[in-house]
Amino acid sequence: MTSTEAWNQLGDYLRETQLLGSIQSTLYWDQNTSMPPAGSTWRGEQLSYLAKSLHARQTSTEYELLLKTAKDEFEKDCSSKELNQLVISQRARNIQLLEKDLKRQKSLDPDLVVSLAIAKADGYNLWQAAKEKSDFKYFSSALKNLVSLRKEEANQLSENRSCWETLAQPYEPDLTIKRLKELFKPLEKCLPELIDKVKRVRKPISKSWDLSEKSQEQLCQKLLNSWSRNSKNTSIARSPHPFSITLGPDDFRITTRVVPGQPFSCFLATAHEWGHSLYEQGLPSSSHQWFAWPLGQATSMGVHESQSLFWENRVARSFSFSERYWKDFVHEGAPLSCAKDLWHEMNPLAPGLNRVEADELSYGLHIVIRTELEIAMLEDDLDVEDLPGEWNKKYENLLGVIPLNDSEGCLQDVHWSEGAFGYFPSYLLGHLISAQLSEAMSNSLRESGVKGVDPISTCIRDGNESILLSWLRKQVHCHGRQMNAEELVQLVTGKELSSEFFLKYLEKKLELLTSNS
Amino acid sequence: MTSTEAWNQLGDYLRETQLLGSIQSTLYWDQNTSMPPAGSTWRGEQLSYLAKSLHARQTSTEYELLLKTAKDEFEKDCSSKELNQLVISQRARNIQLLEKDLKRQKSLDPDLVVSLAIAKADGYNLWQAAKEKSDFKYFSSALKNLVSLRKEEANQLSENRSCWETLAQPYEPDLTIKRLKELFKPLEKCLPELIDKVKRVRKPISKSWDLSEKSQEQLCQKLLNSWSRNSKNTSIARSPHPFSITLGPDDFRITTRVVPGQPFSCFLATAHEWGHSLYEQGLPSSSHQWFAWPLGQATSMGVHESQSLFWENRVARSFSFSERYWKDFVHEGAPLSCAKDLWHEMNPLAPGLNRVEADELSYGLHIVIRTELEIAMLEDDLDVEDLPGEWNKKYENLLGVIPLNDSEGCLQDVHWSEGAFGYFPSYLLGHLISAQLSEAMSNSLRESGVKGVDPISTCIRDGNESILLSWLRKQVHCHGRQMNAEELVQLVTGKELSSEFFLKYLEKKLELLTSNS
Repeated sequence: MTSTEAWNQLGDYLRETQLLGSIQSTLYWDQNTSMPPAGSTWRGEQLSYLAKSLHARQTSTEYELLLKTAKDEFEKDCSSKELNQLVISQRARNIQLLEKDLKRQKSLDPDLVVSLAIAKADGYNLWQAAKEKSDFKYFSSALKNLVSLRKEEANQLSENRSCWETLAQPYEPDLTIKRLKELFKPLEKCLPELIDKVKRVRKPISKSWDLSEKSQEQLCQKLLNSWSRNSKNTSIARSPHPFSITLGPDDFRITTRVVPGQPFSCFLATAHEWGHSLYEQGLPSSSHQWFAWPLGQATSMGVHESQSLFWENRVARSFSFSERYWKDFVHEGAPLSCAKDLWHEMNPLAPGLNRVEADELSYGLHIVIRTELEIAMLEDDLDVEDLPGEWNKKYENLLGVIPLNDSEGCLQDVHWSEGAFGYFPSYLLGHLISAQLSEAMSNSLRESGVKGVDPISTCIRDGNESILLSWLRKQVHCHGRQMNAEELVQLVTGKELSSEFFLKYLEKKLELLTSNS
Repeated sequence: MTSTEAWNQLGDYLRETQLLGSIQSTLYWDQNTSMPPAGSTWRGEQLSYLAKSLHARQTSTEYELLLKTAKDEFEKDCSSKELNQLVISQRARNIQLLEKDLKRQKSLDPDLVVSLAIAKADGYNLWQAAKEKSDFKYFSSALKNLVSLRKEEANQLSENRSCWETLAQPYEPDLTIKRLKELFKPLEKCLPELIDKVKRVRKPISKSWDLSEKSQEQLCQKLLNSWSRNSKNTSIARSPHPFSITLGPDDFRITTRVVPGQPFSCFLATAHEWGHSLYEQGLPSSSHQWFAWPLGQATSMGVHESQSLFWENRVARSFSFSERYWKDFVHEGAPLSCAKDLWHEMNPLAPGLNRVEADELSYGLHIVIRTELEIAMLEDDLDVEDLPGEWNKKYENLLGVIPLNDSEGCLQDVHWSEGAFGYFPSYLLGHLISAQLSEAMSNSLRESGVKGVDPISTCIRDGNESILLSWLRKQVHCHGRQMNAEELVQLVTGKELSSEFFLKYLEKKLELLTSNS
């Protein structure tokens, strides 16, 4: 056997698994962008069939043997010093990740996998019905079932972690509740204070104008063109909920939506989803060679979100950006008389009931609430029936707003309806990571000679966002799953992940926004 | 074993095969409507993977055994008289079709299947390149390879038919060259005469106006809404070449395109593709129960085409239709002063080089030419290199026009580049079938009390197209593959398929068009 034979065989196997996985993603894309509603039953069957085939591939004895043989070959090659250090570290990490994934997949009883798939589909359907009727009780038994099945899942996985932590691993590897509390505690204290401060000095902006669909499309197009879009390998479509997805090593898609009465919704969603896509486009997976290997993938949802938030909040909602774009908005019909007008309109800063529409200031509290509630449902004694009441209580305490009904309360997000517990914190971790990476980026740009108090703003004002992208590609994107989110932040910024950078960023932005209003 | 156990097991197996098949179709839909160009390499790998998996399922010993066991069970049940006549005839036909398909699939050497898949992909790519350069020589060796591989395929299938006939079976079951010649001969004689007649009495219309994309979209929407579109189970998208596809028992899609300078192109393509889709929507396959069984499918491409042509030509290009729609076209900006204007514009009747843009009169000759040429390539001694010359000669003889280059000549259609020989005649058979079915429909509507010289026109004028659709559903769509195209025509019209109805229809239409011009 030559030195890489077993390794290549493993690669071929993973490649076929990825073919199947990306077919599944294509059906998901179609479901959200093209499929007529009545197609959902058959689509559900197609997706279950693929999920079953994928699970079978990922747990087959053939695969297990291929992985073991490749590992043996690798260890022999290491001791005979046939491989260089870079290849050794890459292969070692790939094996580690593959073994971890295999262990997870194999721990699960196939019956549970099927029950979960059905419970997710039911959960989603009942959640939709409940949301339409704005009545949690139509959804509560489905949610109870999902909670109990996912508890059983954590039980079968029997990792050395709590139930919630076990379920959070696929989104945020190595995360613990203890660490999360450390990171979120300063936010729980400071964010409500900042919100109060804003309330005192700034009156909310009420928008009374809108832009046509065509105008919004044109502004999005201009944005993407100046943010390195290559139409040869990217597609854009509409969907009820914007998302970003990668369907092949050279096939990147994002969706957006137009919300009547919200002239920035489409624009900012485009910026956000494009940020996700830019991360995917910079990963090692964007080559055929790496597309099948875990090392090629995104390391965590928190890091993913940090990239979308960087482009949405740090760039598109910045004053420099408004300086560059306000005339384009005016050209499309927006009643703005200067850059400051656009900037203020893009940064409304008023706490509301809805997470997706939340401003940078209150967003964190929406996440803190959800995180506490899902941990309580899975690990403490929060009864699913009591969720709406608890939800409303927390909203009143932390944000000072009370949902009028379940639809604008605990039924607003899709995540729990699909049994996705442990996902929400990634959104807030993304804010923290983005802020901390931005500070490192600023320092690094300053060192390389970019002028101005804030070198990132200088690049934005001059239309040089490609400099920011290059930095992210080189410092962040290229690592894939070589390290977890916290290790990545430590490597890039030289400091442990902390909430201080995010709070500092918010305080500074508020100061500027309120002194100008 | 209970009476239907083996039958149900077979059904479950076929259902999984169909899940896989419809996943393949979904990727095809995405490829043509959403995929960015750079995604094509990976998409190709996904499609090969699925083709391989499908072929394996369709030829597995497990499947063969399931089919045999179900047949044995069925025969036992028949003799013990446990089944009613309808079920017996349905099951017998399903078994017959499944055995035929299995025999075909199994006769093929898997190596040939792979070679063909590669040759088709290569053929398509080289055809595109040749078309761009408008030079047949870039494509000729690929075409030669496809001809030779498909000859080998026919050889391996070793049916009691000629090579071309064998390859035409999947499109037009039971078709023979002898029968085709019988049907086409009167057309070869009469169509050129009719074309000459038109030339003498009617000057060609040159269009100098256009409609905006939005206007064209709105007209299409109005059309589909009045033609029973249910947005719950149908989707519409854009693609370079319009097509219709079914992705699940309740998931029907069509695409259309806007061609600058051709204000009716999008509208008529919509009518055409919707006609295909209406057939699919009326098939037994549009229920979960039948989706997996051959009996649920379309019986032939000729019948399929007859349905698209009925709605495009018999309905949308009729005078009554113009009477109903001309004001809508004017409302969108078309410079028309009466119904007759629209009618004449929709029926240009001038022979050209392009099949897709051909009028009803010359269309048939485009098909006659292709059919003769492909039979000659596969069965006679037409050398692939001589194709462009032969093509041009036939166009001059039959249509009186000469292509200036290969791109507007023998490179214009995609079919041969994918090795699809035997497909073209279906288009013309569709015209014949549509005309013959229409006459039966007219008689039947008259008997049921619809007034007017032409009851179909009466229904169109009154906006009662749903009456036409009901008739088609009950007489044509519901039969699926219970019988072949000619048997269907015989059953519905009481007469053998013939070209006389099509010629009669054309003569009458020409008389009206020319007496009015």
